[in-house]
Amino acid sequence: MALFATSEYLERIGKTKRQMADKSIDVLLVADPANMNYLTGYDGWSFYVPQVVVVAADLEQPIWIGRGMDANGAKHTTFLAPENIIGYPDNYVQSPIRHPYNFVADVLSERGLRNRTIGLEMDAYYFTAKCLGELKKSLPQGKFKDADLLVNWVRSVKSPQEIEYMKQAGKIMEKVMQTAIDTVAPGVRECDAVAAIYQAQMSGTSKFGGDYPAIVPMMPTGEKTSTPHLTWTDDPYRNETAVNLELAACRHRYHSPLARTMYLGKKPPQKLKDTAEVVVEGLHAALDKAKPGVVCEEVELVWRETIAKVGLEKESRIGYSLGLNYPPDWGEHTASLRPGDKTVLQPNMCFHMILGMWMDDWGFECSESFRVTENGSETFANFPRKLFIKE
Amino acid sequence: MALFATSEYLERIGKTKRQMADKSIDVLLVADPANMNYLTGYDGWSFYVPQVVVVAADLEQPIWIGRGMDANGAKHTTFLAPENIIGYPDNYVQSPIRHPYNFVADVLSERGLRNRTIGLEMDAYYFTAKCLGELKKSLPQGKFKDADLLVNWVRSVKSPQEIEYMKQAGKIMEKVMQTAIDTVAPGVRECDAVAAIYQAQMSGTSKFGGDYPAIVPMMPTGEKTSTPHLTWTDDPYRNETAVNLELAACRHRYHSPLARTMYLGKKPPQKLKDTAEVVVEGLHAALDKAKPGVVCEEVELVWRETIAKVGLEKESRIGYSLGLNYPPDWGEHTASLRPGDKTVLQPNMCFHMILGMWMDDWGFECSESFRVTENGSETFANFPRKLFIKE
Repeated sequence: MALFATSEYLERIGKTKRQMADKSIDVLLVADPANMNYLTGYDGWSFYVPQVVVVAADLEQPIWIGRGMDANGAKHTTFLAPENIIGYPDNYVQSPIRHPYNFVADVLSERGLRNRTIGLEMDAYYFTAKCLGELKKSLPQGKFKDADLLVNWVRSVKSPQEIEYMKQAGKIMEKVMQTAIDTVAPGVRECDAVAAIYQAQMSGTSKFGGDYPAIVPMMPTGEKTSTPHLTWTDDPYRNETAVNLELAACRHRYHSPLARTMYLGKKPPQKLKDTAEVVVEGLHAALDKAKPGVVCEEVELVWRETIAKVGLEKESRIGYSLGLNYPPDWGEHTASLRPGDKTVLQPNMCFHMILGMWMDDWGFECSESFRVTENGSETFANFPRKLFIKE
Repeated sequence: MALFATSEYLERIGKTKRQMADKSIDVLLVADPANMNYLTGYDGWSFYVPQVVVVAADLEQPIWIGRGMDANGAKHTTFLAPENIIGYPDNYVQSPIRHPYNFVADVLSERGLRNRTIGLEMDAYYFTAKCLGELKKSLPQGKFKDADLLVNWVRSVKSPQEIEYMKQAGKIMEKVMQTAIDTVAPGVRECDAVAAIYQAQMSGTSKFGGDYPAIVPMMPTGEKTSTPHLTWTDDPYRNETAVNLELAACRHRYHSPLARTMYLGKKPPQKLKDTAEVVVEGLHAALDKAKPGVVCEEVELVWRETIAKVGLEKESRIGYSLGLNYPPDWGEHTASLRPGDKTVLQPNMCFHMILGMWMDDWGFECSESFRVTENGSETFANFPRKLFIKE
């Protein structure tokens, strides 16, 4: 069963082509796995080798180019005609003498596209410096333009079906966070807690299962709560210690992350309780501010003003656009909730608002994933916003 | 507790500096997260923003440069002195007007390194075309050299402590595969099977817990067994169908993957049974061939000759070097078991040998992770090599 109607893929491709025309780009090489999926449906863990989707103004369908053994994967997951699925031989893989982008260049030549203006996703994770170098070596006359984030911006406003998948992820997320809070306890090994969390992420609900999130559970404890991106160990949780939980659920590659903080013990530090209180107040204020027509930095300002009242400040951004994605990030790299970001909120833009206060040797975090509605905002998960104290 | 003695990190850095000297590289920018970990111990899911470890001939310790909020993570996981851990401000993150490599260039200038010959990991996943472009923009007089895979090759021969972690991963792997074979059954949803697999991957054994593998479980069914890199759905498994399982266990970022094929039902196709038999014969032959002094392509040749006897051939490589890694790949991108690869096997090189036969609409796969010993080879997991038939 296709996850989206073919008409939806064609609409996405149409929007992409209009953006290309605006920027005088004839051919777009899409290397970001999320963008490849968005335009064709392609879904497989094959982005560890170079692969692209080629969108051209005068081609009705995109062309998928990837490793030979993954071509059958493209046949199973995309709507593309077989002649638009092209696998390269295995001796291009991690070879000291040839590179997959030499092959991509050959395909562009065969399809009569080599002399057009070619747009490239210059800062996409898997478009390495060497990918560009080899492409230029194979197309010495090529005209290249930076088209980074072009498709990401098209992705920023979600369709009703995309929102539906994000809501399903939100439902799974509620179970995931509840599982974490039920499982994390003094004496339990961190690796056993994460095992239960993964179990909940994947089994989902009786109606819909989970997919792997683009980021693994991040759950630092004790002094390590001063930094957000540490994972877990096999130490047992200790009493009188804090635990940060930044977790996610994923449905058909659509994400709904959620962060909460726990304290294990009877004596939570006053500064932690005080910080939790004002952060949750700021979260409510910022969510209330988010609505169509408001710009991103205005949402951040409400937060900033709220915590300033108790003398706190946060240097890092408080949120970012999210949705469909692959490792290493569920964020879309477009709009951020921070000073200077003038992006105007529109209905069905989706954000992860993460209010992380990472101090010298302690921290607190609380987050919500939400969509902009016609007249406000709506979170994907419904979960209490507070410091969870487990005595 | 440090995972390795500081003396081991210093030894790795020493080997890296000798390789740099051989290639007339004064300063190496290490962007590959596995290489960053190898040289400093740094471990966090922060590679979705640019970060580097700088190794310089005349600096005793490397310099870690990453996002401000991750600097505390570097303090907790590396042996580096605080002055060698440098965080960049959050307004460099996913910004349309500045890039983290502008900041990296500034640090190189401050430390007096900008006029040296700078080695770059040109094809490392997270070193994008734009990272190079911005670095060159900030250092217009810079002298750059391709140093891709320099550290990866240093990593290819493992230390006793690294081998110990890979053996622990192998022990976890046995539990993971047994869990998969016990759980996958007609009527069970694929997402519930993968939930049990993840549970086993993370809980590990009573002595040591698991870490997240660099690749998620890949477990295509039915016709999708014709391609290796599809993940799962929430469909229930059907009777009279094949299931490929390419799974892994990970211990402190060290991997031991294993692939097996199951058939659910009473009537496995003859071609599947015949293929299983010769593939397992080829696996034994190739593992027997692997020993110090043999070159990679000779191992592949033994396999090739074995399956040729029944008229089969496999275009793709049959294995690759592996060990410490991060998403999206557990492979090291150095030695491959394939024609033309003249790498000489040495004790404590480690490989994943994966014999995947991906046909038009069916497939069979069986793999082993192994190390080269003083006089042969030794697999990390001990698990039956056969087609698993579940009636």
